[in-house]
Amino acid sequence: MTSAAPIDFWFSIGSLYSYLTVMRLDRIEETAGVSFRWRPFSVRAIMIEMDNRPALKPAKLAYMWRDLERRAAMYLCDFPNRPPYPLQNFDLANRVAVVGAAEGWCADYTRATYARWFGLGEEAGGEPNLSASLREIGQVPPRVLALARSEEIGRAYDAATAEARALGIFGAPTFVTGGEIFWGDDRLDDAVRWHQRGTLQRR
Amino acid sequence: MTSAAPIDFWFSIGSLYSYLTVMRLDRIEETAGVSFRWRPFSVRAIMIEMDNRPALKPAKLAYMWRDLERRAAMYLCDFPNRPPYPLQNFDLANRVAVVGAAEGWCADYTRATYARWFGLGEEAGGEPNLSASLREIGQVPPRVLALARSEEIGRAYDAATAEARALGIFGAPTFVTGGEIFWGDDRLDDAVRWHQRGTLQRR
Repeated sequence: MTSAAPIDFWFSIGSLYSYLTVMRLDRIEETAGVSFRWRPFSVRAIMIEMDNRPALKPAKLAYMWRDLERRAAMYLCDFPNRPPYPLQNFDLANRVAVVGAAEGWCADYTRATYARWFGLGEEAGGEPNLSASLREIGQVPPRVLALARSEEIGRAYDAATAEARALGIFGAPTFVTGGEIFWGDDRLDDAVRWHQRGTLQRR
Repeated sequence: MTSAAPIDFWFSIGSLYSYLTVMRLDRIEETAGVSFRWRPFSVRAIMIEMDNRPALKPAKLAYMWRDLERRAAMYLCDFPNRPPYPLQNFDLANRVAVVGAAEGWCADYTRATYARWFGLGEEAGGEPNLSASLREIGQVPPRVLALARSEEIGRAYDAATAEARALGIFGAPTFVTGGEIFWGDDRLDDAVRWHQRGTLQRR
């Protein structure tokens, strides 16, 4: 329960609500004095297993967009138009993040690709987003993309997803600390408080 | 957008998260200076139509309980044991609330029945919860229960559910103000802020 250990931040590029977290996590680290370990996995695989696909529920999806717009404005990361959704190349977008997690640039890539996806409407996981995001953070796209498509990275991606499933994770973003899981960008404050104090009670 | 008008609070007795809202709504009214109109409807009918049944998704349900426990403690309304769920007499529990909405004691009944359901483990919509909750708020159980089972109240309940569906509501609790819907106890603060200022932005 020491706040020197990081909070695990489980996410998938392609998750709409993860945008809110991705764009403010560095601010939270600074103001709350906690750190996060970025853990890409396939929330899509788990949601399909659970038959939980918000994109197929029109009322819920319409709400999600509006809720996201209102909250993005609140967090000062509002976007000009609704970005393409769902992603065509969900797995590739996340396999690149898995490479980044191994090499130390996962957060930078994820922020860059989300900023282009929501800010410019360039679909994450596709071109020009992939190569531009990688170049922006000092990576050479052909090298990274070849690695992202490798069996080794595929195994690491599957292993991360299996680990998430075993933890009881069923959505993204999810925060894990002290054996507790907190689902949703709207539980980020709860996760930080739990991490620091082992309770949500204020006194 | 004047805060003299109430915020519509759409709920179903039987919704777990509505417990958190039901138990703190009077505090919110006092501290935020807003008022709420209690609107019972059948979230179950809408969720079945959408094929959205959390009780059938074990990972999600396990999470919901834990999240609820943590947040109930935060709101100082923690409960000793997990109450019976889902409700056997969901519709009757809510038809009584519809009678209460017509007669002016909906909030009192809903608070009383939730307090017994979560606090004592007495299932809402069944006995002894129903009669005890009604007596506690000064109502005569046989009169109210006969009315709750009447065609007239059935029509009012269906009409409320149809109104919720038309508004785009797909879960409970949901708050509606200024044409915007806010889903979840965790969006209550957003709803109040929007009601008062028409935005979630802090400046």
